[in-house]
Amino acid sequence: MEYAKPLAKLIRELEKMPGIGPRSAQRLAFYILRLPQEEARALSEAILEVKERITTCRRCFNFTEEELCPICRNPLRDPSLLCVVAEVRDLMAIERTQEYRGVYHVLQGVISPMDGVGVEQLRVRELLQRLQSEPIREVIIAMNPTIEGDATAHYLSKLIKPLGIRVTQLAHGVPIGGDLDYADQATLVSALEWRREL
Amino acid sequence: MEYAKPLAKLIRELEKMPGIGPRSAQRLAFYILRLPQEEARALSEAILEVKERITTCRRCFNFTEEELCPICRNPLRDPSLLCVVAEVRDLMAIERTQEYRGVYHVLQGVISPMDGVGVEQLRVRELLQRLQSEPIREVIIAMNPTIEGDATAHYLSKLIKPLGIRVTQLAHGVPIGGDLDYADQATLVSALEWRREL
Repeated sequence: MEYAKPLAKLIRELEKMPGIGPRSAQRLAFYILRLPQEEARALSEAILEVKERITTCRRCFNFTEEELCPICRNPLRDPSLLCVVAEVRDLMAIERTQEYRGVYHVLQGVISPMDGVGVEQLRVRELLQRLQSEPIREVIIAMNPTIEGDATAHYLSKLIKPLGIRVTQLAHGVPIGGDLDYADQATLVSALEWRREL
Repeated sequence: MEYAKPLAKLIRELEKMPGIGPRSAQRLAFYILRLPQEEARALSEAILEVKERITTCRRCFNFTEEELCPICRNPLRDPSLLCVVAEVRDLMAIERTQEYRGVYHVLQGVISPMDGVGVEQLRVRELLQRLQSEPIREVIIAMNPTIEGDATAHYLSKLIKPLGIRVTQLAHGVPIGGDLDYADQATLVSALEWRREL
């Protein structure tokens, strides 16, 4: 038996999502089929609403509903300390430690020639503009400990050091080959404490 | 930092889905945020469409876009052989073997007093009506090999046998404690072959 077309279509859309295989997509589709109408509508609308109302911060490229994100708008954050991350999920991981009081810059990826991602695809130009216009004393480069993350960190380090700004990296408390997003808070706290010159 | 409201709402909706924890929900939400507008719309619409267009078959409670499902409409299926399953996903698992040519009856659950599911919540009355009005020779009870599945199978067996209809169950080729939906096709084929009197 083939699935009815609308069901097959939903399964196809769900399968495109990261970490969702054919079997999970089927389970999720069946779950949605059994949802009360208003809950299915809430899910459907939440997807559209997030696309309509969330943009990226004009300064740091964090997600935001306004021109500047809540971190950039917060006068208590230290504008002289800048943490560079690849993705917003890495920013969120560091925020969960509640230990970091500086600001961020989201690169929107890492240098990855295999995936066709070069420096031009990342927010590197915007980072350099910030380093020239903002009172930044130190840049903490917080990349995932992968080949691409390391390459990106070294590239940025070479670019920033000549500007006379201190460049540090997170200590290797984060397990090699692991994912920043999955590190526990204690590991991230010690990685912040043990940061060193790059 | 708190998530922007529309993002927090989407994560909440995604977290309600089976097998989706807070971390997966966040990943999926970020994925949706980065989707091109038309793809996000396709996903959103697929959810609504599945709710609007898919109903359950008036005869067997399989999912369908019409009054009767494709299996009930198929004149090549043997109407004298009826397979009772708990959920549509179990029906799909058996269909994938391409060995079964009878029809189905979807109970829409199993007897589970802990979850407040009794016989009244299941499609048992409709099953008995079919046994009286259709030329059914044999009922294959294909429940998951769990306590609830076994209890439901025995309950149905006691109900059906007095009607003079043969009642069989799938052979225990399906691993105990496992899930019918996850069994491989070969296991399900042998389970069909080895069915025996209940």
